[in-house]
Amino acid sequence: MQIQNATWTEVRDTDTNLAMVPIGSTEQHGPHAALSTDTLNAETIAETAADQLDEPVVVSPAVPVSIAEEHRQFSGTLWTSESTFRSYVRDIVKSLAFHGFDRVVLVNGHGGNVAALREVAGTITRHDDAYAVPFTWFEEVGENASRMGHGGPLETALLQYANPDYVREDRLDDAATGGSRRWGDWVGRVNLAFDSAEFTENGVVGDPREASVGLGEDLLDVASEILADLLKTISEHDIERPPHK
Amino acid sequence: MQIQNATWTEVRDTDTNLAMVPIGSTEQHGPHAALSTDTLNAETIAETAADQLDEPVVVSPAVPVSIAEEHRQFSGTLWTSESTFRSYVRDIVKSLAFHGFDRVVLVNGHGGNVAALREVAGTITRHDDAYAVPFTWFEEVGENASRMGHGGPLETALLQYANPDYVREDRLDDAATGGSRRWGDWVGRVNLAFDSAEFTENGVVGDPREASVGLGEDLLDVASEILADLLKTISEHDIERPPHK
Amino acid sequence: MQIQNATWTEVRDTDTNLAMVPIGSTEQHGPHAALSTDTLNAETIAETAADQLDEPVVVSPAVPVSIAEEHRQFSGTLWTSESTFRSYVRDIVKSLAFHGFDRVVLVNGHGGNVAALREVAGTITRHDDAYAVPFTWFEEVGENASRMGHGGPLETALLQYANPDYVREDRLDDAATGGSRRWGDWVGRVNLAFDSAEFTENGVVGDPREASVGLGEDLLDVASEILADLLKTISEHDIERPPHK
Amino acid sequence: MQIQNATWTEVRDTDTNLAMVPIGSTEQHGPHAALSTDTLNAETIAETAADQLDEPVVVSPAVPVSIAEEHRQFSGTLWTSESTFRSYVRDIVKSLAFHGFDRVVLVNGHGGNVAALREVAGTITRHDDAYAVPFTWFEEVGENASRMGHGGPLETALLQYANPDYVREDRLDDAATGGSRRWGDWVGRVNLAFDSAEFTENGVVGDPREASVGLGEDLLDVASEILADLLKTISEHDIERPPHK
Amino acid sequence: MQIQNATWTEVRDTDTNLAMVPIGSTEQHGPHAALSTDTLNAETIAETAADQLDEPVVVSPAVPVSIAEEHRQFSGTLWTSESTFRSYVRDIVKSLAFHGFDRVVLVNGHGGNVAALREVAGTITRHDDAYAVPFTWFEEVGENASRMGHGGPLETALLQYANPDYVREDRLDDAATGGSRRWGDWVGRVNLAFDSAEFTENGVVGDPREASVGLGEDLLDVASEILADLLKTISEHDIERPPHK
Amino acid sequence: MQIQNATWTEVRDTDTNLAMVPIGSTEQHGPHAALSTDTLNAETIAETAADQLDEPVVVSPAVPVSIAEEHRQFSGTLWTSESTFRSYVRDIVKSLAFHGFDRVVLVNGHGGNVAALREVAGTITRHDDAYAVPFTWFEEVGENASRMGHGGPLETALLQYANPDYVREDRLDDAATGGSRRWGDWVGRVNLAFDSAEFTENGVVGDPREASVGLGEDLLDVASEILADLLKTISEHDIERPPHK
Repeated sequence: MQIQNATWTEVRDTDTNLAMVPIGSTEQHGPHAALSTDTLNAETIAETAADQLDEPVVVSPAVPVSIAEEHRQFSGTLWTSESTFRSYVRDIVKSLAFHGFDRVVLVNGHGGNVAALREVAGTITRHDDAYAVPFTWFEEVGENASRMGHGGPLETALLQYANPDYVREDRLDDAATGGSRRWGDWVGRVNLAFDSAEFTENGVVGDPREASVGLGEDLLDVASEILADLLKTISEHDIERPPHK
Repeated sequence: MQIQNATWTEVRDTDTNLAMVPIGSTEQHGPHAALSTDTLNAETIAETAADQLDEPVVVSPAVPVSIAEEHRQFSGTLWTSESTFRSYVRDIVKSLAFHGFDRVVLVNGHGGNVAALREVAGTITRHDDAYAVPFTWFEEVGENASRMGHGGPLETALLQYANPDYVREDRLDDAATGGSRRWGDWVGRVNLAFDSAEFTENGVVGDPREASVGLGEDLLDVASEILADLLKTISEHDIERPPHK
Repeated sequence: MQIQNATWTEVRDTDTNLAMVPIGSTEQHGPHAALSTDTLNAETIAETAADQLDEPVVVSPAVPVSIAEEHRQFSGTLWTSESTFRSYVRDIVKSLAFHGFDRVVLVNGHGGNVAALREVAGTITRHDDAYAVPFTWFEEVGENASRMGHGGPLETALLQYANPDYVREDRLDDAATGGSRRWGDWVGRVNLAFDSAEFTENGVVGDPREASVGLGEDLLDVASEILADLLKTISEHDIERPPHK
Repeated sequence: MQIQNATWTEVRDTDTNLAMVPIGSTEQHGPHAALSTDTLNAETIAETAADQLDEPVVVSPAVPVSIAEEHRQFSGTLWTSESTFRSYVRDIVKSLAFHGFDRVVLVNGHGGNVAALREVAGTITRHDDAYAVPFTWFEEVGENASRMGHGGPLETALLQYANPDYVREDRLDDAATGGSRRWGDWVGRVNLAFDSAEFTENGVVGDPREASVGLGEDLLDVASEILADLLKTISEHDIERPPHK
Repeated sequence: MQIQNATWTEVRDTDTNLAMVPIGSTEQHGPHAALSTDTLNAETIAETAADQLDEPVVVSPAVPVSIAEEHRQFSGTLWTSESTFRSYVRDIVKSLAFHGFDRVVLVNGHGGNVAALREVAGTITRHDDAYAVPFTWFEEVGENASRMGHGGPLETALLQYANPDYVREDRLDDAATGGSRRWGDWVGRVNLAFDSAEFTENGVVGDPREASVGLGEDLLDVASEILADLLKTISEHDIERPPHK
Repeated sequence: MQIQNATWTEVRDTDTNLAMVPIGSTEQHGPHAALSTDTLNAETIAETAADQLDEPVVVSPAVPVSIAEEHRQFSGTLWTSESTFRSYVRDIVKSLAFHGFDRVVLVNGHGGNVAALREVAGTITRHDDAYAVPFTWFEEVGENASRMGHGGPLETALLQYANPDYVREDRLDDAATGGSRRWGDWVGRVNLAFDSAEFTENGVVGDPREASVGLGEDLLDVASEILADLLKTISEHDIERPPHK
């Protein structure tokens, strides 16, 4: 159930303990993909998983601006501090739990949010009256996960399949040639770079020409199935904290 | 320009100092209007004003969850603390200003945000590198403003005109009869109530049967024209702070 | 009972659940009225209402510095951040409630505090062990409320009646001619100005020559009666939060 | 110059870099002395020193509620968190400095504030555009300092001299017999107690019968002279921070 | 140079822009390894790398308590909130930079700190006058990284080599049999567990019997060499933030 | 029991409610004493007292960086804000209490921490599930306390006895001649200085040549005995907060 399309009486009549909060971002995705790429993709995955599930699940509106300071040199990128972001997500989850939807998946579309979401999910689970876990869709696509990049094959493909108007097909060549092959600037496993402008000229990492509608559909199938499975699991999961040893 | 539908290169090529941030809410609007009423209406007003303006204006994604704790007893209402909300808005405006869009209207659809938006706009204007003012659409509709209520004639009418799928027409009678005539519980001009559940049974204030598509169109015309005028004015406004006396 | 003039044993022996916290400000009020105008007026109203009430009410010392950054260009104006102000007021109310005085009116003398007081009263009522409401005296003076201004007829009159030494009668003409007619700089209902120095030369809004001792007495009568009525009402009011629907 | 009794134009015409902020408290002082004892005494000292000084000094209104949680078991005691208190004082000093009064003495009447004032004065001096130092009057009374107690000879005497209405002379015997001889509950120099109710029955420490009007006058003479001397010194003091070594 | 073993004059005479902050933890490491395992190992790596470097590098004392709430059910585990931890590290780095040691490696020994260190390093690099990167030693040991666990082969081996007194050799069998094979409780790549007590009986993950002094030496060689390389690189690295595009 | 040298199972098997947290600092101590002087001395005192006690007491690792901004002009000095420091200590104590070690002495080696430790101990005792008191060793050495200084006879002597490698004996003359006689720059009891560089050339206050191994041993005997006594006392102390009066 998309909460924003429902009335409060319809939500009241929904019998579930499950909710999802899509976590998007408004940030550069190269010259070919819209700034809302992460938001759209998170929404797509959440909606598809909700449809697959037998029991109802409440889906909140997507968080549209998140941790994207690393892309700030590229026009149009919006961001909040990590601390503000965590507070915003935590407050939303607390509201959901207030109504009884206290097992919540944070369905994430942006790599820059992964760590902060894990942190805030831990805080919620340990200290609030709710249980939350983050789910980042492009980590849940099998071997394809290694091709992620930024504005690369995976994100572009999912857009092409579910929101094709948000891809500028005529700029895919530009996107590929002006981008970089790899995220970051590395010594061992240490990334020396903090801003993507340090290693990509046009914001792209990876080759979005490898994307296709078919790939998008495949990614959606795989990720949404795992998400639906996750929802089913946490609905029955023992979320009580373990006793002291 | 809707920033979420643009690429960063398209934003880069946009020559303006103007931006709008629609400020919505996810909160009960009676049994007949969707929880996203405030978000949809704020977006409608912002988009219409942007279309009317000769010069470009950047429109960010709407803030979907805001200060709505007063409606928390009604299922599905989501809220953040006032402090989190102000930080979230401030961070977004700072990002916009970082790209040169440093004159920003906060286009608000929810009464509960009015005070916090004025506060944060003052903080931004005095202490950040930007100028911001809040604009609450239903205050800018002439004499109609007095009929505001909650889930009442104005909000319902604008939805009916611009987003009719979000109104349950068959529940308008229920909405009207189960609601209250007036917002609050008063001694003089002091409202004793802090939660809307203290004075309305079904969340409605006012009679949504007074709404109509025609009224919605009128409201939109009036409010968006004032908003467009506001944008033109601040674009040229002297925003330097006055000297000490 | 003025708490600052009492010993703890006298407070202990006071049987009531009512308290008032006068909220003042130290800020410019034109060339003719003292910087403490708002503090003095808030104290006057609170004391008069306390005298009218049959049951005892504890009156804390006035908060002397509050949200007045908007007047900062005028020498002598003192201010705190909104956040500090709210914390200061909340802590005071929590202390009062710790002693059993858990129904508290925040008796306010300054327009710049109205929004922050409503916010903090909501926080206290929902999350602390107390109930609080703000009362702003110049909103409770019937039709006179429309003549408020700043350092204008109402504030000057109340000073003239209750604290005449704080008005420089010989500067009333200067005050009137160097002031402005209206608070703010407006497009529709949006105030473009954030600092009063943007629209008033000497800090005054309105014509303080319309003030008189008689007007001051009338204002005090009206406002203190409503305040006394408010106290009586909240003393018996059901302050439990409503159940979830 | 008492800032609350002045207009902004009078403050503007005052040529000085000096200011004082009296720091009071609203807290139990036994059955014989008013809850505002610390505020009154801080004001008395500040005013007297201001009168003695040849150059003008701006005196802000007193901070009426401060760090007094240690007395919370005694009715009427009000307090803020240490953090709120520091923010409140810091904001006031920043306002004063904004107008050019950037050398500020925090004239303190309450032992519980000593540490927090030293901390915030350091923060202000190192990180804001101002220089501040705390001055606690009862530490500046020569050998008498050792007789301080709480509601004891020193505080009572200063009240008797400057604000006699705030002492209940007929309860001095009760005050003395129901109080304790010493502040705290000690192992070595560690005070095991955090609340004064752990070691004093009626809130008093020391014997207020040793107070007298004459002693009050003497204390005021000594302390205000040192304070005036302090003001003269800091007015000319090199407040630049030392270079790195 | 170990800063804690030096005098300020010796630090002053040290010509470098490089510093390291070892980041430890005090947390359960099974029945066989001391609670300070992470601290000791971080110190070992930092010291060894410092010795290998031709130029001097300042090494601060280790941060002894960090983000270990996930182990709280096991006695003796100490932790701070993530927010406190980030502030503590940030303040230390700012102090180092104040003295000119403004390129700082955060040499980390605890998996629970990885995300928070990356976040705070970004904040420092973008907003303070310093450049910082985290380095987590057990990520920098080639293929061995996959055997990490908790209190498993890698940590135990490094202790055995560098701090053998901190391993209880006679409990290695117990450690192995009472531990678990894998960190976490997984659906796809989502870890449902937030506390290690949810999936390990005695706190161990992995088989510490696979550890050996020789393995410890190898790990130290590999990791410290990469760390020395990292230090050389950042000493010359262009740390200016990229321009807006 | 040194917690960092124990396994969690060993801590679990320790039957006590007592803990100590040594509070050190990394800050200049003149040309002759190491930057870690305060940490080492706090650890020495805590360990010695632990040995003297009949019952077990848990000793956490020392907090190595604390409130030392006053020494920032001297190279190598590290510091945190007061607020960060208090949070760090509070979190550690809360962790200890989580395991049942809820009576905690903060064994302090640095004068700059005294006030902040008393504040945070009060916060813990009143608002957390623990009781804490600070103990500053050099205040507990009888008449010797008056000779404290900074890097002076007391601190140097304790180092000479317990950690002689951390004293540069050949620089004692330099230390003495380049130091100052007195801490601070005074008017009455007000210290005008906020940074030690305002009154000491080389960071020293007092004459470290008065130190000796014998004096160090004496200081340790006296202070650790009082500390052991304190531990015994609080182990049995009634720590319940007093009732309201």
